[in-house]
Amino acid sequence: MCGPVVMAAVRSEMDRRGLFGAAGAALLAGAIGARSARATRQATPVGGAVTGQGTVALGSFTAIVDLSHTITPGFPLFPGGTPFELSSLQTYEADGYYGNRISVDEHTATHMDAPAHFDPEGVTADLLPVTGFVAPLAVVDISGRAATDDDAQLAPDDILAWEAANGPLPAGAFLAMFSGWEARLADPATFLNQAEDGTLHFPGFHPDATRLLVDERDIVGIGVDTMSLDFGASADFATHVTALTAGKYGLESLANLGTLPASGATIIVGGPKHQSASGGPARVFALV
Amino acid sequence: MCGPVVMAAVRSEMDRRGLFGAAGAALLAGAIGARSARATRQATPVGGAVTGQGTVALGSFTAIVDLSHTITPGFPLFPGGTPFELSSLQTYEADGYYGNRISVDEHTATHMDAPAHFDPEGVTADLLPVTGFVAPLAVVDISGRAATDDDAQLAPDDILAWEAANGPLPAGAFLAMFSGWEARLADPATFLNQAEDGTLHFPGFHPDATRLLVDERDIVGIGVDTMSLDFGASADFATHVTALTAGKYGLESLANLGTLPASGATIIVGGPKHQSASGGPARVFALV
Repeated sequence: MCGPVVMAAVRSEMDRRGLFGAAGAALLAGAIGARSARATRQATPVGGAVTGQGTVALGSFTAIVDLSHTITPGFPLFPGGTPFELSSLQTYEADGYYGNRISVDEHTATHMDAPAHFDPEGVTADLLPVTGFVAPLAVVDISGRAATDDDAQLAPDDILAWEAANGPLPAGAFLAMFSGWEARLADPATFLNQAEDGTLHFPGFHPDATRLLVDERDIVGIGVDTMSLDFGASADFATHVTALTAGKYGLESLANLGTLPASGATIIVGGPKHQSASGGPARVFALV
Repeated sequence: MCGPVVMAAVRSEMDRRGLFGAAGAALLAGAIGARSARATRQATPVGGAVTGQGTVALGSFTAIVDLSHTITPGFPLFPGGTPFELSSLQTYEADGYYGNRISVDEHTATHMDAPAHFDPEGVTADLLPVTGFVAPLAVVDISGRAATDDDAQLAPDDILAWEAANGPLPAGAFLAMFSGWEARLADPATFLNQAEDGTLHFPGFHPDATRLLVDERDIVGIGVDTMSLDFGASADFATHVTALTAGKYGLESLANLGTLPASGATIIVGGPKHQSASGGPARVFALV
């Protein structure tokens, strides 16, 4: 549906980065062709242990908060998505134990968007450095505006206001938008909030805020408690393009952000690790 | 194949716990029937935030180590299992971005066994308390014996030897067996190591060691770098039954355990959170 528009946005961003010089648009097609070869080559049986990160003080915490929703067949999906399916493999009665096969669209419920989701040159989720999966967590609360504006966007001023209250964004931070939208999961159609003309309406990051974070701060990723890093009415996924082509990862449909302090928590991201992952279900925690 | 044997082991364990009294074996069948109703009732859209855990000192760490293998179609499976499948949903060329649907047996690659995997009364993975997902990690090295004995088992004496060297097992610990078996993933058939008579041969926990941990220590779970908590030749899955019916969880096919200290690391378990999960792929880290 929005394929050509998104395609143009990706190309525009790559052009901005000087990736479309003499080679022109052919590079994009070439990079697409190279994807599977690269992913196959880099994915080794043994996981990518990373050592020598340098000492990071975690201190102590008094609570662990689950930031992942339960994946169910009824969890809201983008139009055209296929619901989560659980099919029985073993039963107590027949086998003495219980097991299933699961099928799920990568971008279902609480999940990661890897750079490769929007960047043909970007890393897939299984290959992201794990050093970015434990990070200082900044929660920017726009729930006041979102309560009266379904198209609310986290703006540069929201980031500056957060810093005025909490100090500079820590190096290597993960910044999450809290809009209060998860309360709508009690009535899933209101979480997606699709108008009669097909347009979705829910809060997200304004591209200018994303640009500020990517260019002028040091972040590992951004997250939202809605279905998309971009607000629902976005026609070009400009926040996705800006964040993911800069090598950052995204987390969508985060839970329980409203229970966290604006500053001082640590996020731990149990990202997906299947080969060639554009993203996938993630188990995310906050230590508070 | 081994269904009836396992069934008998489960029933024996439940009998030991007094669950099969006057009600008799009918309870097991009843519990099976109750599973889906209970899972449906308890799984709410908003994840189970847990607060007030009490202060836990994490201190600082110098490395984060990835304990999860990459899920690939070629990762060894128990006989009868169906390989991981990735099917394309969106491509850069047609849609401007990249996405897939994934299908995977719950017990594939690095994954969790929830109590419900072997205990009809046990909790499913999505409902396990997250307080058990950050834990002191004890690594018990039996790689010396495993190098010459494909049927090596972690015995009570191995736990006592670990404690003699490292002090008492910390409260709420996760205990992992390191056998060195992951080196065999370079030739997947040797990881499964199935003999001509169909018997599997790889290391695991001896049921007596599991009983010691469950009855006389305070653990949240146990893990292995092989395909199963029980050694491959087990006929009754006695370690599974002992650990899971005690409410502990298991982690199988862990990676990189050989890079960790015997004591002092912290495990972080990004367990699966799909509804009614007997287990599922898990992203697991150690902070060292």
